[in-house]
Amino acid sequence: MPRISIAEIEQLCEEALPWVHILGLTVEEIGKGTCRVRMPAKEEFLRPGGTVSGPALMSLADYGMYVAVLSAIGRVELAVTISLNANFLRRPKPGAIMADCRLIKLGKRLAYGEVSLFSEGEEEAGPVAHVTATYSIPPDRAK
Amino acid sequence: MPRISIAEIEQLCEEALPWVHILGLTVEEIGKGTCRVRMPAKEEFLRPGGTVSGPALMSLADYGMYVAVLSAIGRVELAVTISLNANFLRRPKPGAIMADCRLIKLGKRLAYGEVSLFSEGEEEAGPVAHVTATYSIPPDRAK
Amino acid sequence: MPRISIAEIEQLCEEALPWVHILGLTVEEIGKGTCRVRMPAKEEFLRPGGTVSGPALMSLADYGMYVAVLSAIGRVELAVTISLNANFLRRPKPGAIMADCRLIKLGKRLAYGEVSLFSEGEEEAGPVAHVTATYSIPPDRAK
Amino acid sequence: MPRISIAEIEQLCEEALPWVHILGLTVEEIGKGTCRVRMPAKEEFLRPGGTVSGPALMSLADYGMYVAVLSAIGRVELAVTISLNANFLRRPKPGAIMADCRLIKLGKRLAYGEVSLFSEGEEEAGPVAHVTATYSIPPDRAK
Repeated sequence: MPRISIAEIEQLCEEALPWVHILGLTVEEIGKGTCRVRMPAKEEFLRPGGTVSGPALMSLADYGMYVAVLSAIGRVELAVTISLNANFLRRPKPGAIMADCRLIKLGKRLAYGEVSLFSEGEEEAGPVAHVTATYSIPPDRAK
Repeated sequence: MPRISIAEIEQLCEEALPWVHILGLTVEEIGKGTCRVRMPAKEEFLRPGGTVSGPALMSLADYGMYVAVLSAIGRVELAVTISLNANFLRRPKPGAIMADCRLIKLGKRLAYGEVSLFSEGEEEAGPVAHVTATYSIPPDRAK
Repeated sequence: MPRISIAEIEQLCEEALPWVHILGLTVEEIGKGTCRVRMPAKEEFLRPGGTVSGPALMSLADYGMYVAVLSAIGRVELAVTISLNANFLRRPKPGAIMADCRLIKLGKRLAYGEVSLFSEGEEEAGPVAHVTATYSIPPDRAK
Repeated sequence: MPRISIAEIEQLCEEALPWVHILGLTVEEIGKGTCRVRMPAKEEFLRPGGTVSGPALMSLADYGMYVAVLSAIGRVELAVTISLNANFLRRPKPGAIMADCRLIKLGKRLAYGEVSLFSEGEEEAGPVAHVTATYSIPPDRAK
């Protein structure tokens, strides 16, 4: 069972994550240490070549990792990214992007996981990007 | 001498980089293979803890690398990021962020460089983030 | 079916990969785009704290990726690493290390994959390290 | 002034870093948070194509970062790498490799820095590799 619900995540976004709200990111599924998040198609995310821009993909991946961390430790808003490594594998066509996230290691102070990003409806073509990230968990986990 | 001017970059952003336009990113200085880019302070970029969010910093760094690549090879719009590694070193206070970018290697097909990001006016405190990235340069460089 | 056999890899190591030979790395299993490689326990690999050193783990991961690439494209000796990102998750006890490797993307010029490293016999404790890497495939694939 | 001398590093290597000893790595210069380390030319480090192998370069970079960390905090043997990102930029000819290392951020628990690697005597050709790494500093810094 995840330690935070989709409804709680949505409330947190509205209150404290304006960027996620502006991008229109949503949580589709949540487990304990796993989640699937989605970025809708928007003209603003496109770059020359007609593909979804790298920063938009990285924003989605970073949000997915944040949700995956909170799904494992509860509403610890002050968890922060300390490193993120993104590899762009295929040029995504304009359209929504899905990101599957899972924690690989959950320690007391650090969490590490990976995110695979796909063009929605074209999962069989393989990931458009693959991201790994490390989050720092504050010693005092209380919100 | 850079192979693209600040005015040409601004025109490119207006025409083809809506995201950069929305974020309000600007080029402050440009050399050959180097540049300084700036992200203004905006409420939307903040995250819990009152710091500038990781995705906003990565968007700035990725843009700075794009400008640094174009400063070395001219207006090759289809240059794309193939990997980006971001390390977050200090929590930036709300405010503008400056990013100093330089190419470390410019090959025929790949360009690699680094970006140091600072809170504007607090450069002496050290970088808030450090990013390295590899760009792919299309074989046909014509626009 | 893999496009190179374990026997062919071993022959290649003896002829052209002295480092792999010195480390005693072996291929335990091979598929198409996947493999399991192993590093034996050696005193020389230890570092202060009594754990297997990072460079030894990275050597194993890099070798595993090389084998995974060759398993997909055949004996293309000149495939070379262009980037490698290693994350160290747990301190491995002295002992042999197993590495499970798989390609995530195989393109004409670039291959990208991931490697999960485990202390042999303690796989259920989770990986001791996780590595992603990009290999460059030469345009002329003939040896 | 560095908080550890070259002689103390050499003693530490002999006692506790067999790998560094086998590779023949040496410290050429040391400052506070900076150092230059060297890897001699050895047949064993070569790989197909006649270039120095990636794992040998990463071993040198990781050692250089370790020395740079100890130059800033003293003999804290249990400092360990938590992540390392290597980018290979040019194929180094057979020969010795020099690595210039510097800390970018020194915190209480984490240190982050970069390493530029050059073929000895060909520094003007640009780096053969560029590495960034994060080290974890144990809470109890006593040896």
